Amino acid sequence: MLEIMGNGKLILVRHGQSEWNKSNQFTGWVDVDLTEQGEAEAVNAGKLMVEKDVLPDIVFTSLLRRAIRTANISLNAADRHWIPVVRNWRLNERHYGKLQGLNKAEIREEYGEEQFMEWRRSYDTPPPEIETDNEYAQTDDPRYQFLPEVPRTECLKDVVERFQPYYESEILPQVLEGKNVMLAAHGNSLRALVKYLDNISDDDIAGLNIPTGMPLVYEIGERGKVLNPGGTYLDPEAAEAGAAAVANQGQK
Amino acid sequence: MLEIMGNGKLILVRHGQSEWNKSNQFTGWVDVDLTEQGEAEAVNAGKLMVEKDVLPDIVFTSLLRRAIRTANISLNAADRHWIPVVRNWRLNERHYGKLQGLNKAEIREEYGEEQFMEWRRSYDTPPPEIETDNEYAQTDDPRYQFLPEVPRTECLKDVVERFQPYYESEILPQVLEGKNVMLAAHGNSLRALVKYLDNISDDDIAGLNIPTGMPLVYEIGERGKVLNPGGTYLDPEAAEAGAAAVANQGQK
Repeated sequence: MLEIMGNGKLILVRHGQSEWNKSNQFTGWVDVDLTEQGEAEAVNAGKLMVEKDVLPDIVFTSLLRRAIRTANISLNAADRHWIPVVRNWRLNERHYGKLQGLNKAEIREEYGEEQFMEWRRSYDTPPPEIETDNEYAQTDDPRYQFLPEVPRTECLKDVVERFQPYYESEILPQVLEGKNVMLAAHGNSLRALVKYLDNISDDDIAGLNIPTGMPLVYEIGERGKVLNPGGTYLDPEAAEAGAAAVANQGQK
Repeated sequence: MLEIMGNGKLILVRHGQSEWNKSNQFTGWVDVDLTEQGEAEAVNAGKLMVEKDVLPDIVFTSLLRRAIRTANISLNAADRHWIPVVRNWRLNERHYGKLQGLNKAEIREEYGEEQFMEWRRSYDTPPPEIETDNEYAQTDDPRYQFLPEVPRTECLKDVVERFQPYYESEILPQVLEGKNVMLAAHGNSLRALVKYLDNISDDDIAGLNIPTGMPLVYEIGERGKVLNPGGTYLDPEAAEAGAAAVANQGQK
């Protein structure tokens, strides 16, 4: 429901398990689907929103199937399937460059822990660029045809730079109009947003892990100021366990 | 893909079998889900769009789950899950008034063939109004809270009057910009549109049946003129069989 008085809330939902999460491959902009577990996580997220009475009035998604289906499934479970939808590439996962499609454990073994963690967590060093003819590049993908150039790799800083202006100009105004705004997105696009919302340093953001399928709610005050720094998980215990699991990704 | 030269196409898709189609109940604005068969029809519609290379660039849906899920499922099957989505109540099914929730065969038996067909097919006589406290009224439904008044019954003429201006102001301009526009909607909202597109008389529209899950394509020329009167089904043989099945609804 619209809250006529005051601002709305931001509801961040990272998509649940995808096929390549399961097979431990770097995904980035490759458009893999959710697994059954990922679908169940989306249902659970929808039920939590009902249970805690935090219902979205509008949803933003990336252009990637795993986020789009997370939105569709969770909203259907929350009986909010009918709310307006906005999709934008600026919510996409970080482009993982040449790593897209490769196995995380193998990369870790081949290049060592330090290089592996730098590619996963460095703020401003992107992985090597993907070749345009690589099967996992998005060179001729029609959904990106209006971009001057399709990204060939990104670091988290690149994601911040593409997502933050969109947040400020398209998403925040909806919250300031009193709407609860759900974002169905990805580990790194949501980390980019949380970095901005909580004013986290370039160094400290490396340690932040967002669990999948766990709605994370930010209360927004005047001029977009966050009223509950760090946000509030609708299911805090499950979220803590989920974040630890994410931190251990890439272990064999 | 956008066709840079010329206008786009209209792609009409009536949702597939819903729970109440299966149980033979009048549905209208009651928000029942698709059955498994209905989901399979949506997948089939998506595959047909790929096979015939008629791919939507934007989709409009009603605010009802069975149309929304038909859009989601068929677009996912067509690898077009990422296109923009617009939802509006003006695409909703006709409100069936007091008949909502009642069994079609029972109503036919109780009131006789003539009254039954008048309620189903009269252009300008609506069924009796539903009481606001009826469990199948939408009195406090949050999705309609911005309407001055939630409909309590509608005839097809009412649907034409609410849908046609929206078609002209919001949908047709997208087609004239060169986009293929998919409408995922309902038997009577699509009949209302086809009446307008093909300039069908108030009397003759009673005999028009649109099959479920069968993409029906209209080529649009200058100023919205239809270039292929009657439209073109992507699978004409299946559509013919489907239309006959719809015409026989309400038989025991």
